[in-house]
Amino acid sequence: MSKGTLYIVSAPSGAGKSSLINALLETNPTYDMKVSVSHTTRGMRPGEAHGVHYNFVSVEEFKELAEQGAFLEHAEVFGNFYGTSRLWIEQQLDKGIDVFLDIDWQGAQQIRRQMPLAKSIFILPPSKDELERRLNARGQDSDAVIARRMDEARSEISHYTEYDYVIVNDDFDVALIDFKAIIRAERLKQDKQAAKYSSMLSALLAQQ
Amino acid sequence: MSKGTLYIVSAPSGAGKSSLINALLETNPTYDMKVSVSHTTRGMRPGEAHGVHYNFVSVEEFKELAEQGAFLEHAEVFGNFYGTSRLWIEQQLDKGIDVFLDIDWQGAQQIRRQMPLAKSIFILPPSKDELERRLNARGQDSDAVIARRMDEARSEISHYTEYDYVIVNDDFDVALIDFKAIIRAERLKQDKQAAKYSSMLSALLAQQ
Repeated sequence: MSKGTLYIVSAPSGAGKSSLINALLETNPTYDMKVSVSHTTRGMRPGEAHGVHYNFVSVEEFKELAEQGAFLEHAEVFGNFYGTSRLWIEQQLDKGIDVFLDIDWQGAQQIRRQMPLAKSIFILPPSKDELERRLNARGQDSDAVIARRMDEARSEISHYTEYDYVIVNDDFDVALIDFKAIIRAERLKQDKQAAKYSSMLSALLAQQ
Repeated sequence: MSKGTLYIVSAPSGAGKSSLINALLETNPTYDMKVSVSHTTRGMRPGEAHGVHYNFVSVEEFKELAEQGAFLEHAEVFGNFYGTSRLWIEQQLDKGIDVFLDIDWQGAQQIRRQMPLAKSIFILPPSKDELERRLNARGQDSDAVIARRMDEARSEISHYTEYDYVIVNDDFDVALIDFKAIIRAERLKQDKQAAKYSSMLSALLAQQ
């Protein structure tokens, strides 16, 4: 059996990354794709479930896991810790399951160093105007708040060259077809197919 | 504008390579894919057209072109010369057109050395029995003839590891979807998208 692929997916807010990942997994009947669930020390919010949205752990547990090298990457955001479990991901990949990691460019750099076979996808909004519109969807934010969000988006976008693939999310359905084509094509890579069809290939290559 | 990609497509006889390439190009309404037309010194056969099936040239012309380095690869088969024009392919790629090169593993090796950005696809039959059945479709050939064809197929298949992608042609429609996914995904590679969306990216990355 061929191993799964780890996909790093990054985008500025407003590019539609989460919607694309969710749509991809909803239309996947064979359970051979999963989203990585992060560990976090922040409190559980209403509607969240342990093991679904996050693996909720104490600060002590988190620090112990981090010391053991259990995280492919981890970061502190607003006083809370977040980390990506190496073991869980490797178990899924060994089962032939593709794993999707929704992460920013800094996390992506850490993952790439440890998982050099990971493939990375950057999702772009279709234009600056559309990005501004999406970041200001509620229409209630001050110019300063929107300017800060645009700065953050620009900073994230400036790292798109570090990614293997770029999807422009103008029409959502087209972007989803793009996303699926990348995964389908990656599964057709020679090493994946050689593992999947190893017995057939042995028969084809055997002498009469 | 982003440059086109050169695709090297190889397969043993009976894998359905030509049918897949033809089906791909028939369903391509935007004229951004073409099959490379080889030069040959062999005589034109009934139903063939110059510039469509081959570029028919004299032995003298062929040798002059070969000396000028006009061919990415060339070979002699049963006393006739066959060659792949470097200039025509580079012109298509510069126009953003993907070019498909139907060629065996030996030609593929020559092309890869000169066009390192080329992507290569190997097409496999679904089983040894099915390959034998396809190679013996007319049912009139001697065991020795079929055994020779199987030997040739085995020799070609033994080079599949040199290719970027492998498609198993069991169900033709599924194999065609695979083929299309590879081309779609390759067009989503970061460098291709950066060229295609260069002005949008400049706007997204410009300071306010």
